[in-house]
Amino acid sequence: MRVALSLRSWRNLVPLIAVLTHYRRQDLSHDLLAGLVVGMVTIPQAVAYAYLAGVPPQSGLYACLLPMVIYAIFGSSKQMVVGPVAVAALLVAATVSEYAPKYSNAYLAITAVLCLQIAGILWLLRLSRMGGLVNLLSHPVITGFVNAAAILIIVSQLPALSGIALGEAESPLADLLNLLGAVSQLDALTLTFGLCTLTFLVASKWLIARCLILFGVEHTQDHPATRTGPMLAAIFSIIIVGAFGLSSDLDTVGFVPAGLPSIVWPDFDLELWLNLLPAAAIIAIITYVESYSIGTTLAAKQQTRINPHQELFALGAANVGAAITGAYPVAGSFSRSSVNYSAGARTPVSSLFCALVVVVTLAFFTGLFANLPKAVLAAIVIVSVIGLIDFKSSRRHWSIYRHDSWTELATMALVLIFGVEVGLLAGVGISIALFIRSSSQPNITQVGRLDDTEHFRSVKRFEVTTYPNILALRVDENIFFANATQIEDRLLRRALRRKDTRHLLIVCSSVNMIDATGLMMLYRLNSHLNEANISLSLSDVKGPLMKQLSNTDVADTISGEIFFNADQAIKRLLSNTQLAEGTHENS
Amino acid sequence: MRVALSLRSWRNLVPLIAVLTHYRRQDLSHDLLAGLVVGMVTIPQAVAYAYLAGVPPQSGLYACLLPMVIYAIFGSSKQMVVGPVAVAALLVAATVSEYAPKYSNAYLAITAVLCLQIAGILWLLRLSRMGGLVNLLSHPVITGFVNAAAILIIVSQLPALSGIALGEAESPLADLLNLLGAVSQLDALTLTFGLCTLTFLVASKWLIARCLILFGVEHTQDHPATRTGPMLAAIFSIIIVGAFGLSSDLDTVGFVPAGLPSIVWPDFDLELWLNLLPAAAIIAIITYVESYSIGTTLAAKQQTRINPHQELFALGAANVGAAITGAYPVAGSFSRSSVNYSAGARTPVSSLFCALVVVVTLAFFTGLFANLPKAVLAAIVIVSVIGLIDFKSSRRHWSIYRHDSWTELATMALVLIFGVEVGLLAGVGISIALFIRSSSQPNITQVGRLDDTEHFRSVKRFEVTTYPNILALRVDENIFFANATQIEDRLLRRALRRKDTRHLLIVCSSVNMIDATGLMMLYRLNSHLNEANISLSLSDVKGPLMKQLSNTDVADTISGEIFFNADQAIKRLLSNTQLAEGTHENS
Repeated sequence: MRVALSLRSWRNLVPLIAVLTHYRRQDLSHDLLAGLVVGMVTIPQAVAYAYLAGVPPQSGLYACLLPMVIYAIFGSSKQMVVGPVAVAALLVAATVSEYAPKYSNAYLAITAVLCLQIAGILWLLRLSRMGGLVNLLSHPVITGFVNAAAILIIVSQLPALSGIALGEAESPLADLLNLLGAVSQLDALTLTFGLCTLTFLVASKWLIARCLILFGVEHTQDHPATRTGPMLAAIFSIIIVGAFGLSSDLDTVGFVPAGLPSIVWPDFDLELWLNLLPAAAIIAIITYVESYSIGTTLAAKQQTRINPHQELFALGAANVGAAITGAYPVAGSFSRSSVNYSAGARTPVSSLFCALVVVVTLAFFTGLFANLPKAVLAAIVIVSVIGLIDFKSSRRHWSIYRHDSWTELATMALVLIFGVEVGLLAGVGISIALFIRSSSQPNITQVGRLDDTEHFRSVKRFEVTTYPNILALRVDENIFFANATQIEDRLLRRALRRKDTRHLLIVCSSVNMIDATGLMMLYRLNSHLNEANISLSLSDVKGPLMKQLSNTDVADTISGEIFFNADQAIKRLLSNTQLAEGTHENS
Repeated sequence: MRVALSLRSWRNLVPLIAVLTHYRRQDLSHDLLAGLVVGMVTIPQAVAYAYLAGVPPQSGLYACLLPMVIYAIFGSSKQMVVGPVAVAALLVAATVSEYAPKYSNAYLAITAVLCLQIAGILWLLRLSRMGGLVNLLSHPVITGFVNAAAILIIVSQLPALSGIALGEAESPLADLLNLLGAVSQLDALTLTFGLCTLTFLVASKWLIARCLILFGVEHTQDHPATRTGPMLAAIFSIIIVGAFGLSSDLDTVGFVPAGLPSIVWPDFDLELWLNLLPAAAIIAIITYVESYSIGTTLAAKQQTRINPHQELFALGAANVGAAITGAYPVAGSFSRSSVNYSAGARTPVSSLFCALVVVVTLAFFTGLFANLPKAVLAAIVIVSVIGLIDFKSSRRHWSIYRHDSWTELATMALVLIFGVEVGLLAGVGISIALFIRSSSQPNITQVGRLDDTEHFRSVKRFEVTTYPNILALRVDENIFFANATQIEDRLLRRALRRKDTRHLLIVCSSVNMIDATGLMMLYRLNSHLNEANISLSLSDVKGPLMKQLSNTDVADTISGEIFFNADQAIKRLLSNTQLAEGTHENS
């Protein structure tokens, strides 16, 4: 592939160049403010998700440095913030903890490999232009998966929240039962911190909004300050632990090394690489699906669009950044991106300021984490993921899209019981099976002339004129292998059942595709109809399909013709019939 | 399930009752003649396929007794002849030879289990009304599979044809190489018989037709006597072997026990049952697909139809008959059914006469098989299956249906390399994947008014009128999970790119289905368009889809309306725009 290194292609590859060349002075204050606010939201989340992913707290902060900056340089979304996210953290923990103990250096080495693989897969999708593959994850499959992931995450935080130490995780249900069995080991102080934080966080939006009103702020709805609850909870708890000297009675974050991460290149171990690949593929796809949907939503608010190819590239690059700085897989964060947007960020420069907040924290404030209780972090995680759970769409779709609801519930149950890989694959399989099933039972309706117009509509729904010798049937589906036999059967039955039928007209206005099996079926149908002296014609064949059919001998093979539309077909067939009958009477 | 045992339902269950009550005297001579001719064709084929299936020769003959009679009683096809067929024989050999040596009693016991399982699966498909599942085997998959099976069968007959003894079969390629390596062990006499029979069989249709002309027969085309080549070859070779005393120098069929089979009920061994199940499922589906297509073809020639449910039941019953009489799995035979039809059979009574021929053979003529060379049988098998090979459809489809051709070739290659199960499953997978892929890249075309009509056609293919403020796009595909994002993306891009667009109209005349993912997409598209002050409307929504959408809140959610057709949509949107602009100018 020749890469033309003109300035223009550089600009396409590095959207930040265009942003900086058109940067206006008034954007700076907006980006600065947004960057600082997002930084406030990021710090506690980053540390909390680090524990969820099984990496040391500083790794969570590192994930908000180089990866975030790299995305700001290469990403096509102006407001999306890339960094650690809950669902990816859960998947990382499930994958890597099979190979090494959590929070160890070996664990971090494997996490780095995972990041590189995710980057490789995203780039492969970019190069092969196969990004569309992710569309196989239908809405119900994603909803079911995210619901299950949120439940898994919440269950995983219960030990830290209650101070009960559990053994190796087996299944969420086993964990829950173990937890209930060990309820006597509950640590009252830990649980108090956990529950107080939970309560505070749930009420924090409202509380902070009230405070803002006291300070004379008018529009408190979606005010970025209302999102700083986690930061406030962390600061309060650090103060309380410090003031009352509780750090020895509580499980706290403890020592976090100060300073920036050093660049490390992961080792290569073929067996490990092969073993991690399936999980990497799943995380890569989930990462892309979530980030793309966040990016599209934000872009649409400003009547712009993001570039899916560029997103694949930028997310891959961000994960390479994570791999070499001891971080863990990153993706677009829904909560922080929306804070960034509502705080008024205008360009990716806000992400650079946010990274600066992380740098300052790493340089000067790592000592503060010593007194930060893990129960507070668990509460932060729980409150963040509760918002991900969505049972509404399942309820709303129950009466209309029964299939989709079943797919959603099945995906959720399978992810909970058999894990993410099995659940997601089964979900995709179920989606496809149900789609094929619904396509294999097409609607076939007789159409007739609407009044004196040239319109042909269903005889069931409209008062239309039909013709005794001509049976016009509209097939409302692509004609392909899964329904060809059924369509043949139904067309033949209706043609034979209706007395006096001399011509069968298939109205193809809803047929977008006829595959080889469908074409064979038309030939077969034609010869079967011939035996009964019924001619076969087609009408309303659309451009692309007509182009395809014109390469076959279908026009010569069928006993009738291919007409432009039903109107012309009926007129011609009527005159043919009269002609034939005239001849018949004369002879 | 309550089974109403009225006379009518009995007649439905046992079509032979209706046949016999309406039996006319003049049908008898036709059925008798056809039965005798089919018997002539059946005897050599039955013995030849028995060797292919790995069962003793009498088992092949037993397969033409009870199973054939049972199908004649329960089948809904008037002319289909059920019995041993080549492809099923190949699958039986591949499955059962894993568990027991060929031609042994243990082998026969396992074959009987297989028959019962096939019957069970066919009945299960009948009861669950899931017979449509077989439609997942697309035309290219079946063609690829049958081609591969024919090649496997031909290779399997080469040792018997050439007199070279081979060890256990591994793969067709290995067998071929072993055969070439052992070419020095070639038996000249065996090969002479084999090649002479091959040559005679290939020329037999033409030869017999010539002889018929000598006897004053006029219409030799498709005359049933032209199909008796195998019988003549068998008789000639028996005479030659007997006259020259060659039976000790040749591998012949040898002793075949006289008399009818005894009824045996197979043993039950759970592990064996479970092991055989996948193969039984494949054989059952192939059996049904082939038999159904034969039955449909013959029925269509007489403007009747066969009943797929009844076929599942009758084929299942025939296989139970095979299980308890020491036979092996049976299916509709294409060659014998067409001989039956062209010999003038009018009812299934001809099958009863054919069974009588088999009974007479078993009673009096089993001694003749002693001198029948196996090389002659191998030649009969090879000539029968050569007719199954079809490379034409692949060649014909190459330029038009590239996808289907690839599917066919891939299925064939995978069946040859990895066996029938893997090949067929992969073929189905590839068909589905390619279908989803083609559905995920829909045609989206701008439409405009054709002259002064109410018709709206593609701007690319017709001279049509468009309107500056209204963008009417016709989406030529169902809107579902695999293409929702792409459709959203393309609609949004075209709406934003075209200056002055105030209304986007999606013309749904080709949309047969919108799933939950598609609906979510419409909501998202609507809000994205709203941000750019573009309204979203739908038109030409067909009845069934409209019924479904009316249960959702899509009509209230989208900023525009759902119009009856594009004509009304354009008229209303134009007047709305003028109204809005009028207001604007006034204000």
